[in-house]
Amino acid sequence: MALVLYERLCADDRRPSPPCWCARLALAHKGLTPEIQAIKFTESDRVAFSGQTKVPVLVDGQKVIHDSWGIACHLEDDYPETPSLFGGSGGRALTRMFNHWVDHGLLPALAPILVPYMLAAVHPDDRAYYRQTREARFGMSLEQLALRRAVFREALDPVLEPLRQRLAESSFVCGERPAYADYLAFAAFQWARSVCDVDVLAPQDTTLRLWRRCMLDLFGGLARSVEAYDSAG
Amino acid sequence: MALVLYERLCADDRRPSPPCWCARLALAHKGLTPEIQAIKFTESDRVAFSGQTKVPVLVDGQKVIHDSWGIACHLEDDYPETPSLFGGSGGRALTRMFNHWVDHGLLPALAPILVPYMLAAVHPDDRAYYRQTREARFGMSLEQLALRRAVFREALDPVLEPLRQRLAESSFVCGERPAYADYLAFAAFQWARSVCDVDVLAPQDTTLRLWRRCMLDLFGGLARSVEAYDSAG
Repeated sequence: MALVLYERLCADDRRPSPPCWCARLALAHKGLTPEIQAIKFTESDRVAFSGQTKVPVLVDGQKVIHDSWGIACHLEDDYPETPSLFGGSGGRALTRMFNHWVDHGLLPALAPILVPYMLAAVHPDDRAYYRQTREARFGMSLEQLALRRAVFREALDPVLEPLRQRLAESSFVCGERPAYADYLAFAAFQWARSVCDVDVLAPQDTTLRLWRRCMLDLFGGLARSVEAYDSAG
Repeated sequence: MALVLYERLCADDRRPSPPCWCARLALAHKGLTPEIQAIKFTESDRVAFSGQTKVPVLVDGQKVIHDSWGIACHLEDDYPETPSLFGGSGGRALTRMFNHWVDHGLLPALAPILVPYMLAAVHPDDRAYYRQTREARFGMSLEQLALRRAVFREALDPVLEPLRQRLAESSFVCGERPAYADYLAFAAFQWARSVCDVDVLAPQDTTLRLWRRCMLDLFGGLARSVEAYDSAG
């Protein structure tokens, strides 16, 4: 059965989108290799068949699934013979809780650092759209946002502490082997290294840096295989 | 076999300690009723037999377990016939991740609001100890901390967002039924209502308020059964 994943395309073939990386890594975890269709911000009509405008969208035979969590649940339920993304019902519930922390804790702490870099990273056709939507969201110009970078980087450090504590006691968030919660958190760092030539992690943050390197090595270096900056792992 | 739980005693028989509530609720989840031994901050010699100075400490027959996470794992492993606290291996790993978020995200956001109230709440014998240790931790007097309360309350709101998102889609953090991750988060609110006559949740925060009420109702109203302020559920 044909698997097609629609994900975000940026300039120079970069693929920074965190939810798209969650879907890519979840598919790899299940041993599945989708055909990739990459679309620009201003090409959302290409996923209109999914009933909404955002990526990722997965087409799996007759099924169309949007939203990275929906895709993860679909893969877990429809491919039960492959390695689990959640590790049981308790794991699914708590991975969803972790997903909300990533979306409403980790990514909001990273976004003001990375969004100004995104102006150069998005496809040239998307720049006007990107500037307009993000400046409206942050209530200031991307240049003003960039001027506050040092403040945002300092504020990121305590937000990372729960993850740091977990990875100080365990190789992966999910235990001895990585699973979906690891992909959720790693996707944020993959966004960073895709667009930003300065590492968001401090040199002395060895716990998080070691885990990030292990994540980059997974699935034959899948996350390393795309265009990104060497500065971050 | 005799079960004894050592927990923190405060003034007027109050029991605000979050990790002690995690242990109490985990025991109730397993259908176990321990004998409670309540000790003041300045009575840590009473748990010296555990090889450390903090509560909770659980004595289960010949076994002595300290630290709320250690106690939860002990109960899960030694009472496998009773309802699970984690819901499988994935659930245990992710509950531990959630535990770190509570300890390094939620509780640090609540602490500067609640610590000034604690001066009145701790046992009179502990007040000098409490003031000294907490003023050293925050680098200011408890009175100065109290003056900034409005700032800390405003900062709490976004920290709660991941929990709010989860509870908007599910009755409990752990799904249809509460389990250890719910106790971890609820214990923070139980601390608040044990010591503070103003609700830390806004009146319009209906999602979190409803969940908190359900948590208070569990196990025959166990968490309601202790001395607390009515203002918060």
